[in-house]
Amino acid sequence: MSISAVAREAGVSTSTVSRFVKGQLQLSAETEARIRAAMEATGFSAPHSEVKNLALIIPELANPYFAQLTQALTDAAHHRGLEVSVFVSDGLETREHRIVAQCAHGGGTGVDAAVFVSMTGSSAVLVDVPEDFPFVVLDEGLDGSLAERRAFVGADNFEGAYQATTFLLSRGHRRIAHVAGPGELGSARDRLRGYLRALRDAGLETDPQLVLEGPYSQSFGASALSRVRRLADPPTAVFAASDIVAVGMAAAAPMHGVRLPEDLSLIGFDGIEQGAWVTPRLSTVVQPLAELARTALDLVDAVSAGAEPTTRLLPMELRIAESVAGPLPSAT
Amino acid sequence: MSISAVAREAGVSTSTVSRFVKGQLQLSAETEARIRAAMEATGFSAPHSEVKNLALIIPELANPYFAQLTQALTDAAHHRGLEVSVFVSDGLETREHRIVAQCAHGGGTGVDAAVFVSMTGSSAVLVDVPEDFPFVVLDEGLDGSLAERRAFVGADNFEGAYQATTFLLSRGHRRIAHVAGPGELGSARDRLRGYLRALRDAGLETDPQLVLEGPYSQSFGASALSRVRRLADPPTAVFAASDIVAVGMAAAAPMHGVRLPEDLSLIGFDGIEQGAWVTPRLSTVVQPLAELARTALDLVDAVSAGAEPTTRLLPMELRIAESVAGPLPSAT
Repeated sequence: MSISAVAREAGVSTSTVSRFVKGQLQLSAETEARIRAAMEATGFSAPHSEVKNLALIIPELANPYFAQLTQALTDAAHHRGLEVSVFVSDGLETREHRIVAQCAHGGGTGVDAAVFVSMTGSSAVLVDVPEDFPFVVLDEGLDGSLAERRAFVGADNFEGAYQATTFLLSRGHRRIAHVAGPGELGSARDRLRGYLRALRDAGLETDPQLVLEGPYSQSFGASALSRVRRLADPPTAVFAASDIVAVGMAAAAPMHGVRLPEDLSLIGFDGIEQGAWVTPRLSTVVQPLAELARTALDLVDAVSAGAEPTTRLLPMELRIAESVAGPLPSAT
Repeated sequence: MSISAVAREAGVSTSTVSRFVKGQLQLSAETEARIRAAMEATGFSAPHSEVKNLALIIPELANPYFAQLTQALTDAAHHRGLEVSVFVSDGLETREHRIVAQCAHGGGTGVDAAVFVSMTGSSAVLVDVPEDFPFVVLDEGLDGSLAERRAFVGADNFEGAYQATTFLLSRGHRRIAHVAGPGELGSARDRLRGYLRALRDAGLETDPQLVLEGPYSQSFGASALSRVRRLADPPTAVFAASDIVAVGMAAAAPMHGVRLPEDLSLIGFDGIEQGAWVTPRLSTVVQPLAELARTALDLVDAVSAGAEPTTRLLPMELRIAESVAGPLPSAT
């Protein structure tokens, strides 16, 4: 079926449909749903790109967030008949650079497009990527001008962090710590900005002692808990920039005589499934993994069909579980 | 340095060293350590195979066991200067077959050796693998005569299951259920045999109602808990054939008014890190991931150097945490 049939069915112009299927147009959810329904009804499928083998470059798989993001992307790719080769970069810029270059030049990898999840935020890896090689940046944006010519999809980290912090404020917390990710990562900086903005919007001063910066690891979570507990005026709540850090804090809590959530409320970030294994169940800001994966593949299709690279930020969702205490006395 | 220098230093014959570095010889831990020390001291390194790009075919990454096994294999490979392309089979025989064939025939994947983790136990995937393509089966053995010509390394599932069950018996448990894995998997059958043998060696009858068989998933764990609790004479302990199933049981316990470990002791299998996130911490039988990974790479080297394929079973270790109750009154 033709694009014009889809456009008629959806009640939009053919150029809207055409630009939409190439990924060049961001539409309201309502219009997008109408076009997708019309594509379904008319049996239209977007002209398929030549991509058959896709590379996914991911920092690591021990952190469940990256394992689940990888699973989401391979699920979505298999659904579309694409095979995925996953490469683990160990989060090292030298390895990121080498793998990206190998993929982009076919260096024995046999892939014809790549989706890249950075752990350094460095766009230096793009130096060796030909302009016409379909390359999509997922999850972690890259700094620098080289990144401007590349498609990107990630979650709205600023907004997610703002929501989490605002929720803690609404429960009456005033001393809220933030365990931030590595400062060289744009996602970590965006989460920090969201936290700071929420405090400011609530008319609160920020206390530099309440912001700790470190790697996304359980052991950093454990040490961060010990540090905030030693403060003269310790926080009543923590917003952690990743679930793995929050889990590290929860695991260390008994050793410090800290009860969650009575003594300390805790919200993580990412929405890993295993947050529900922790007692109390971890509240978190959930990454839309399936939609991130689908959008990344849409962008691969679009750029391999010659579309201009676009940037997409997907909304996040706050999932409140048992790790946040009810309203504090001071809140009522 | 030469093999003879290593042999002199280690006090063994040159043919022992030669067969050991080709992976043709299984030695006592003591002799192996002596040879490795001698290799270190003399600066000898094993003749390197031509393998540069290795494929790892894995069922899924959402289950932390497979994510951690993948991380262990990529860690070990990177350490040796090998790159790894990871392919996710979704545990489907058709996809296992297709990916294995693509890898073995270079079909756009650019790999020159493969390590295969099966989720079906089927050796039919080997039909399209040329005899001289370096191919190592990891973790899950394959059934059928085609598999006999292939190198294999896995954990000693029978022995691990025997240990776990014997430990529960030593704590006084007599009604011990086993939540087994899929019957088509040799690893699941070996774990079941270990459980049954331990009961028999303790002079106990086996009760078929206490053996449930199903997939390695959290949801099957939850339904298994509900089934054993409905028995007229429910078990006081469960040995689950995988941690993900044990976690599903632990998560469902509160809904059934079951306290762990007071009402039910629980031992899982695999040793995933996240077992420590569960309350009470999960007791488990730990897979030697780093050693499985190293041995798989040794076997890749050996078979690509023309050695006869060998089979290795590595010992497992019982890790007892809080999910097992102390001696029952009847045990004392």
